[in-house]
Amino acid sequence: MTDSARTMVSADLDEFDERLAAELTSDPGLLGDIGRNLIQAGGKRIRPRLALLAARLLDGAGSRDGMTVAMAVEMLHTASLLHDDLIDEAPTRRGQETAHQRFGSTVSVMAGDFLLARVLRLLALEGHNGLMLLMSDVAATICEAEIRQYELAGTDSYSFSEYLKVIEGKTAVLISAALEGVALLASSPAEERQAVRDYGLHYGRAFQLRDDLLDLTGDVGDLGKPGGTDLREGKVTWPVLLLLDMGYTEARDIVGRRAARDGDAARMKELLEESGAVRQTLERIREETEAAEAALAVFPDSAAKTALKELAAAEAGRSS
Amino acid sequence: MTDSARTMVSADLDEFDERLAAELTSDPGLLGDIGRNLIQAGGKRIRPRLALLAARLLDGAGSRDGMTVAMAVEMLHTASLLHDDLIDEAPTRRGQETAHQRFGSTVSVMAGDFLLARVLRLLALEGHNGLMLLMSDVAATICEAEIRQYELAGTDSYSFSEYLKVIEGKTAVLISAALEGVALLASSPAEERQAVRDYGLHYGRAFQLRDDLLDLTGDVGDLGKPGGTDLREGKVTWPVLLLLDMGYTEARDIVGRRAARDGDAARMKELLEESGAVRQTLERIREETEAAEAALAVFPDSAAKTALKELAAAEAGRSS
Repeated sequence: MTDSARTMVSADLDEFDERLAAELTSDPGLLGDIGRNLIQAGGKRIRPRLALLAARLLDGAGSRDGMTVAMAVEMLHTASLLHDDLIDEAPTRRGQETAHQRFGSTVSVMAGDFLLARVLRLLALEGHNGLMLLMSDVAATICEAEIRQYELAGTDSYSFSEYLKVIEGKTAVLISAALEGVALLASSPAEERQAVRDYGLHYGRAFQLRDDLLDLTGDVGDLGKPGGTDLREGKVTWPVLLLLDMGYTEARDIVGRRAARDGDAARMKELLEESGAVRQTLERIREETEAAEAALAVFPDSAAKTALKELAAAEAGRSS
Repeated sequence: MTDSARTMVSADLDEFDERLAAELTSDPGLLGDIGRNLIQAGGKRIRPRLALLAARLLDGAGSRDGMTVAMAVEMLHTASLLHDDLIDEAPTRRGQETAHQRFGSTVSVMAGDFLLARVLRLLALEGHNGLMLLMSDVAATICEAEIRQYELAGTDSYSFSEYLKVIEGKTAVLISAALEGVALLASSPAEERQAVRDYGLHYGRAFQLRDDLLDLTGDVGDLGKPGGTDLREGKVTWPVLLLLDMGYTEARDIVGRRAARDGDAARMKELLEESGAVRQTLERIREETEAAEAALAVFPDSAAKTALKELAAAEAGRSS
């Protein structure tokens, strides 16, 4: 991430952390603690950053619009992380033990549900029905994408289009809502609302493509979580789809046995690099980030626009 | 349940089933199917029935008010059942395999989350901020009560007051919201709103006390789920608290080993009956149902009031 994108909303993000901590009190305290700890463990805060930048970009949006959406989106995202980690039985997240690993399923299910209850509260206090409908659609779409991914992992049919549906539903619609939600609160013109929505969808696809590539080729220390998990969970992501499409039977075998043998993950990484699948995936990521930047053409130049373009461009080089 | 309580809103309940089925469509279809199947598997529909009766009781409430609240409350309740069954690893519910048993944790977590997303959507379309705040508070309180129960199960400190907090949070606040929500939508006078709220809290406590008693003493065939589960999960409920309070060391031993030995559950049932703990629990249930009936004194006599009083009174004799 470049300096301008990093620093532009850093004061807002400090306020965001404080507001969020205040929102997540519970009795017993454990529930709120878990959400707060996970958010403070140093996630990338991509979604709140985008909401806060959108508030600067959109004519008529106030900083309060950005803050409300930033909080709602990050709480929904954190709920989905807690439930994902339970489902995947993930041992670590952001370099620390997951709530599921540490406390078990009661706590991780309920901590996620508690965050969803707080999202509802925040939206009720804001009182904007359009934002509520957007968030409810996003929440439902995330669930549908999880089930689509789960159903795909149980078959041996692989398809680029199904994969794209999954990453759009799992990731891109929420990232997009971080920007579109602000446009709704600010009553932005339809053209601007559509522009930030498109930016978010392209950025979100790039983001998830990058995440999935890193899971196959990244450095475990950088990631803060184990690599190769997708293969072990039967999730066939874009780079592997490219390999299968090129006819690599060795890749198909590794996928078939869910990388169960020693050396499978390392061999897959070699194949991905040799075959050009890594390079092709990086190209695809670049196409998405360029489309994200292009979507902002309707806005006059501003520091916020520059920061958003830089954020998108940075997805091509991200290593964690 | 008496005939008048059963039949009074039966046409409304048919419409409720149809509306709910329409609300729970998803792609992939599995998510919506699970919620729909669980609701149609023949739950007692206590909460929607109460909301629909409240709409008849409260001057100025329309049937649409009752339907919206009935749906929101039943969807929230069903989400919480799905997540509970996962947490408890329950094999059966309402006489059929649980979603968790049949499909695993991905599907049961996501089916619950999907229902919560649909609750948000329904509330957004209704657009009443007071109802949203009530529902968000209820949703958060349910999570807090689950964690309280979980933390208590990990200790050997037992208390009547903590137990009452748990059943109030787990059960009574949602049952109460089924009635209070209608009062909010109908802009009922404060006195009437308070009256239905109190009715719901007392009814809800009676309902959960009865459920917990049946788990210890009920017939498995009637219940549609295995009995004695609370003891095995370390949950010490009202009847057992009475035994412990009377100084039964044998009961304390069974609680301490979570009824792990053959015959423990049957022996506990004997102790509960011999000691008078069953009788005392039934008295407590009757006190709560009488308080529920008394709360309705502010309303003039009507068929709806009679039906609500009969529903409460029926808790004393319920066997499933």
